[in-house]
Amino acid sequence: MGRTSATKESTKLQLLEAGIDIMIEKGYNNTGIMEVLQKTGVPKGSFYYYFDSKEEFGLQIINYFNDNIVVKKRKPLEDKTVSPLQRLRNYCDELIRNIEQNECRKGCLIDNLSQEMADQSEVFRNRLKEIGDESTAIFAECIREGQELNEIPKCYDSQELAEFINCSIKGAIGRAKLLKNTEPIKVVFHILFDFFLKTNC
Amino acid sequence: MGRTSATKESTKLQLLEAGIDIMIEKGYNNTGIMEVLQKTGVPKGSFYYYFDSKEEFGLQIINYFNDNIVVKKRKPLEDKTVSPLQRLRNYCDELIRNIEQNECRKGCLIDNLSQEMADQSEVFRNRLKEIGDESTAIFAECIREGQELNEIPKCYDSQELAEFINCSIKGAIGRAKLLKNTEPIKVVFHILFDFFLKTNC
Repeated sequence: MGRTSATKESTKLQLLEAGIDIMIEKGYNNTGIMEVLQKTGVPKGSFYYYFDSKEEFGLQIINYFNDNIVVKKRKPLEDKTVSPLQRLRNYCDELIRNIEQNECRKGCLIDNLSQEMADQSEVFRNRLKEIGDESTAIFAECIREGQELNEIPKCYDSQELAEFINCSIKGAIGRAKLLKNTEPIKVVFHILFDFFLKTNC
Repeated sequence: MGRTSATKESTKLQLLEAGIDIMIEKGYNNTGIMEVLQKTGVPKGSFYYYFDSKEEFGLQIINYFNDNIVVKKRKPLEDKTVSPLQRLRNYCDELIRNIEQNECRKGCLIDNLSQEMADQSEVFRNRLKEIGDESTAIFAECIREGQELNEIPKCYDSQELAEFINCSIKGAIGRAKLLKNTEPIKVVFHILFDFFLKTNC
């Protein structure tokens, strides 16, 4: 990459990262392009060089967040050096650490925008649904492997159990954000791992 | 109530109800006072007769929604003519009906605003947290009664189990809104009632 295109790439990343920082707390509608420009020092004309519209900016933010944050957060679920049940535990432990680090602010950008935009934009909804489905599929695969190894009760359909665990975690993150403490997440993980996933069925 | 104060009361209710209709889909920040006025035909000056500010309007909307919608939705949980486990089932059946009626749009205003405002306003967060805690307490009481009657496994702490069920339902409502179908809610209820709450422990 030549010097100019490297600079262009870095300006674009700056805009995306500033957009994430603001949007994860304030949402899509409440994030102004001006605020993003002020935070980065990028002039307004340049913004429209990189993004056709605010919608395009929002969609690229979603993709950037998915490729760089969601995929990284999901890594423990795919770490085949660890047993499937332990992978689930590691994912959950990491989640609590992350939320504590953020002092129970922010939550997950994908979940926040899903809630905000699902009724507002079919373009956003379709992309966010794809990302949600990908996550559920990775949970389901981990569960399926755990069932094969008799680590996870076999009475559940792996896809349904993935949806169930996914929903309980999403709800718990929302409650933690509201209460500003991780107690609801700890309670959900305690019931999931110490009771629910130990069921004999 | 004299005719004038009855009219005033009715104008205020009109504003609150129009505010709910808009805010439940678009969120607090994205709801403009002008849109509420256009929907009701109330002049701008009158709005500020009833509400000091948009924040005051938002808080009164939360209280009105809680007193008239949340309390009504929670009724099945408190219907002592029915057994506690059946109360939980009735609550969940009613929830699915409601969400289907709304074609998986909207969700719950309290949950939506909790997500949107928890990092934005301590005034909103505190009121929304109070309402969330009230709901959890009513779930917990229903569970405690079910445990006494051996309808619900006793190994769980009733408060923790209430938090767990609450979180899984909230997450499922969010997923239904994103997918625009009630499958995630049905899956969560299936696992809760057909497996989880039948555990011998």
